[in-house]
Amino acid sequence: MIYLDNSATTKVFPEALESFTAVATNYFGNPSSLHELGMQAERLLIQAREQIARLLHVKATEIIFTSGGTESNNMAIKGIAWQHRHRGRHIITTSIEHPSVAEACKQLEQLGFEVTYLPVDERGIVSVEDVEKAIREDTILVSIMHVNNEIGSIQPIEQIGATLKKYPKIFFHVDHVQGVTKVPLDFKKANIDLCTMSAHKFHGLKGAGILYVREGVKLSPLLAGGAQEMQLRSGTENVAGIVAMAKALRLAFEKYEKARQELNEMKRLLIAELSKIEGIQVNTPVDHSAPHIVNFSINGLKSEVFVHELEKQQIYVSTTSACSSRKKAPSKTLLAMGADQKRAESSIRISLSYENHRGQLSLIIEAIKHALKKLQEVAREM
Amino acid sequence: MIYLDNSATTKVFPEALESFTAVATNYFGNPSSLHELGMQAERLLIQAREQIARLLHVKATEIIFTSGGTESNNMAIKGIAWQHRHRGRHIITTSIEHPSVAEACKQLEQLGFEVTYLPVDERGIVSVEDVEKAIREDTILVSIMHVNNEIGSIQPIEQIGATLKKYPKIFFHVDHVQGVTKVPLDFKKANIDLCTMSAHKFHGLKGAGILYVREGVKLSPLLAGGAQEMQLRSGTENVAGIVAMAKALRLAFEKYEKARQELNEMKRLLIAELSKIEGIQVNTPVDHSAPHIVNFSINGLKSEVFVHELEKQQIYVSTTSACSSRKKAPSKTLLAMGADQKRAESSIRISLSYENHRGQLSLIIEAIKHALKKLQEVAREM
Ligand SMILES: Cc1ncc(COP(=O)(O)O)c(C=O)c1O
Ligand SMILES: Cc1ncc(COP(=O)(O)O)c(C=O)c1O
Repeated sequence: MIYLDNSATTKVFPEALESFTAVATNYFGNPSSLHELGMQAERLLIQAREQIARLLHVKATEIIFTSGGTESNNMAIKGIAWQHRHRGRHIITTSIEHPSVAEACKQLEQLGFEVTYLPVDERGIVSVEDVEKAIREDTILVSIMHVNNEIGSIQPIEQIGATLKKYPKIFFHVDHVQGVTKVPLDFKKANIDLCTMSAHKFHGLKGAGILYVREGVKLSPLLAGGAQEMQLRSGTENVAGIVAMAKALRLAFEKYEKARQELNEMKRLLIAELSKIEGIQVNTPVDHSAPHIVNFSINGLKSEVFVHELEKQQIYVSTTSACSSRKKAPSKTLLAMGADQKRAESSIRISLSYENHRGQLSLIIEAIKHALKKLQEVAREM
Repeated sequence: MIYLDNSATTKVFPEALESFTAVATNYFGNPSSLHELGMQAERLLIQAREQIARLLHVKATEIIFTSGGTESNNMAIKGIAWQHRHRGRHIITTSIEHPSVAEACKQLEQLGFEVTYLPVDERGIVSVEDVEKAIREDTILVSIMHVNNEIGSIQPIEQIGATLKKYPKIFFHVDHVQGVTKVPLDFKKANIDLCTMSAHKFHGLKGAGILYVREGVKLSPLLAGGAQEMQLRSGTENVAGIVAMAKALRLAFEKYEKARQELNEMKRLLIAELSKIEGIQVNTPVDHSAPHIVNFSINGLKSEVFVHELEKQQIYVSTTSACSSRKKAPSKTLLAMGADQKRAESSIRISLSYENHRGQLSLIIEAIKHALKKLQEVAREM
């Protein structure tokens, strides 16, 4: 089996799962309880927060634990919107964001906010100038992803952040779910106010995520209640999941640091080999893209059928983002890049992990060729 | 060690943790992925949903998985508010709700909604008549907890639901976090539209919860995005946590069914014994209260110190709700019941699990007497 759907979710590090089990068994107290069992759990939380802060080069008090990327994105966008609604009701984002950003924005539009969805170029990259041109008197938030989850294009976060320095009242949120540990990002240098991450995308467990909230940034809580997480995110903390996430983040930083070059070369080779195959159009730009994502379209064929065909050869890929795959909608990112409907409907995403290597290349390419041939034959017969 | 803080959180069932580990290891796929690894994960989700639905006597499509009680409460209240804001902006709740209900209501008040906080009587119980009297033309939601988390009083949910039948446009939300598996509640009979539950309160794992949403009830998602959970709660599902929750719920129903009588008698005896101790005032009503919660005040003493004194004897209790304990605020429920500030500041909560039994009674009572004596001596010396 070759699992190539790591942008959908990753296999948990055994060490992270062990931490989970140990904490859930031996430290089950509620971190808010005053007695020792509560204190023990709270100490574990503090440690995890400090570890994660160190890995991200930020302060521990800037790390808010959530249930995942979707919650972090909704919390950032709605939290800023409601908190700063008296200053303005305009938000800037792109047309290639993950649904958890796009749909949160759509909800706000129905509640009186205005949203500008910026276009991207044919590589799937937004322009820094476009961001600046979209800024208005009443703009309160710019929300732009780092690495696109469908095609892997990298957005110019640092340059956008530098531009936004001129507008100190506008908050800058970055969806870093696909980027963290894979593509370096300096939160401070990029002038980021809020940054989303999700444990299960870096070999942690589903059910835990992070929202980085820069010191001094005020937002209205999405989950109000017992005032956990510096009053920003209430709810009994998933202590075991958080401890496991801290461990996974450390291991992932190590492993992807080591694997980066290998993955980058594998990506280049994959793109080169795929480009040679008749009937395939590569969608991922060779440059300005993450080392782990390669997206291509299989002209005239249905991507879903292709996924199943590859699966017969024990190779697991996806059509578009996992979230959208069930809806069988064309790829939003490809459409935004100017691809036609057909191309956007027939896209396949390969997403690698640190465990993949060039030794698997010919197997993957052969399997793709084989699947393509079989499906083309079926198509001709029909 | 005698752990008597089960309303704050419970020890996970080993069987539930085993399910978690097995799923996280062997079924790590994203349930939205089209390939077999995704399908396997989705089948586990479907099974868990069906199991839980069967246990609660509702339909599988009425079960929405969340990250816990706080999220479920925020989702229910804000979700109804935003979805039905054009019909009205008035909400009815009580003055003894958990902060995740109370604070969600306060946020909505700042955004143009009006909230009526109903009083409770000296037993900590709201009156059905008061609920009906508070109803206005523009009322869209009534949110009332089943079992109070501080003193264990049971609210007349079935009667309130019967009354609300006359007002079919008003939604009825019940916070059942402390009640589920401990105090039977028939969702259908009680005419409930939305009902909150949290796994870690019934020996499941932290990070998973349920919102029951009756068929046909529309609400605006709190977490918008990839449209998981019947479009009501986006985010990659915590499959392992959900499977573990389904197992825990089944086991908890069995074990609390068996333990109910024992716990009820233990509660009665605890209340009887505590009432005899000079300097102690019992706050939990003998009748109309859950079998697992006993709350009392230790006149003139600081409850926090008392918790630590009992802890020296390896007995773990809490001051008030875990969420509020760190804030050292007086018990909101006790104040609402008419207790004076002193009594509300010196409250102690014992919360039992199915593992407790009358054999532990004298140990607990002796430990309380001992702690009380020691602290009274200290107080006299000062
Ligand atoms: C770019 C991006 N943002 C947000 C998310 C949502 O994260 P989660 O699945 O943890 O809710 C995902 C993954 O689905 C993603 O790829
Ligand atoms: C009555 C009640 N509602 C809601 C909650 C919140 O649940 P959770 O801790 O899962 O967020 C709790 C527990 O703290 C509770 O006791």
